[in-house]
Amino acid sequence: MDATSNTRLTRLAELGSSDRAALDALLDGSKVAHVAVVKDDRPVVIPTACARDGDVLLMHGSTGSGWMREVSTGAPVSVAVTSVEGLVVARSAFESSMLYRSAVLFGSCAVLEGDDKQAALDVLTDHLIPGRTVEVRASTPKELAATLVLALPIETWSLKISDDWPEDPPDDVDGPAWAGLLPLETAYAVPVAAPDLRDGIDLPPSVRQLSGQQQTPKPPT
Amino acid sequence: MDATSNTRLTRLAELGSSDRAALDALLDGSKVAHVAVVKDDRPVVIPTACARDGDVLLMHGSTGSGWMREVSTGAPVSVAVTSVEGLVVARSAFESSMLYRSAVLFGSCAVLEGDDKQAALDVLTDHLIPGRTVEVRASTPKELAATLVLALPIETWSLKISDDWPEDPPDDVDGPAWAGLLPLETAYAVPVAAPDLRDGIDLPPSVRQLSGQQQTPKPPT
Repeated sequence: MDATSNTRLTRLAELGSSDRAALDALLDGSKVAHVAVVKDDRPVVIPTACARDGDVLLMHGSTGSGWMREVSTGAPVSVAVTSVEGLVVARSAFESSMLYRSAVLFGSCAVLEGDDKQAALDVLTDHLIPGRTVEVRASTPKELAATLVLALPIETWSLKISDDWPEDPPDDVDGPAWAGLLPLETAYAVPVAAPDLRDGIDLPPSVRQLSGQQQTPKPPT
Repeated sequence: MDATSNTRLTRLAELGSSDRAALDALLDGSKVAHVAVVKDDRPVVIPTACARDGDVLLMHGSTGSGWMREVSTGAPVSVAVTSVEGLVVARSAFESSMLYRSAVLFGSCAVLEGDDKQAALDVLTDHLIPGRTVEVRASTPKELAATLVLALPIETWSLKISDDWPEDPPDDVDGPAWAGLLPLETAYAVPVAAPDLRDGIDLPPSVRQLSGQQQTPKPPT
């Protein structure tokens, strides 16, 4: 079995999508990927921050992290990016499920160095907090040396999108149970300044824009 | 390397927790697990619904799913349950990170059958929508035969909790950049009745309680 056959959807094929724009929309709206790698013949899966940059998915972490070192050798990885967007409440437990978008990518990561590494770190930072890189100092050589930056080509992947009504059989539709969708909503709350924030430092545009909020008072120390 | 050494945290040890109650709180508040298994010497990671039942983590899926069949043979798995709860906005990109709770479990799954299987499916249903099982009909033998139910013992696991302020070095604290936390909040929105819902079927208590909402009009057909 080669990597490509991993992407063959053996079940729920109707949810499968080969729409690259839909994949990009999921990746661009997601902050976390789950990376699986084989270590000593066993699977290990770890959550990590991610950001798409064109045709690669960027991830980063500490050089002291065992799974990052394993992945940095070019070992095969499987990377899941998942967005749960609500519940599909069907008339039976069997047909009930989730509203979700789910991508699984397969391949091997390249380790980025030099200017590519710094540029990728900026993409990761600005993906989590758009506009943040221009508000903070540049990375130091020591910080760069302590960080591994990985790039997974977006080449071999599968995408499943569940965004439809419950599909109850006619007998259940005629029965007494309710059916519908229960959407899940996520939003940033009011930002909270660090206890050691110096006086006179305003909430920066990046955080203000993400949260749609003004700065709150510092919590009691 | 045995499974236990997988749980040794080689990095960010200060975030590590061996608090079983904290693990249970994470699992009980999570709907999705990412399951990694080795298939044909390559890692595969898949998101799936999960629910804790005492000392096991339950997962289920279709008998037609390749990864479920692989896992049902007792192959070693690694299962991640992750909750992203906000952003840690530090004064540098390097120290910025996420607020999160992250568990990784290791082991092999048992396949549940008979009464255990039905009971586990009820736990899974009521975990997603508390109180739903008493509102819907029982599973049919055909539905049960099409479903695999897996139980992973909660024995070998690691837990990391990031819930603290940014840890900027003194030079950065003295600098001009803002620092703080940006919490992320998740809530169910207004439920939407299915287009084919028969007239006169009210929003059930389970969905009403989850969403804190009354039933909305059916969307246009």
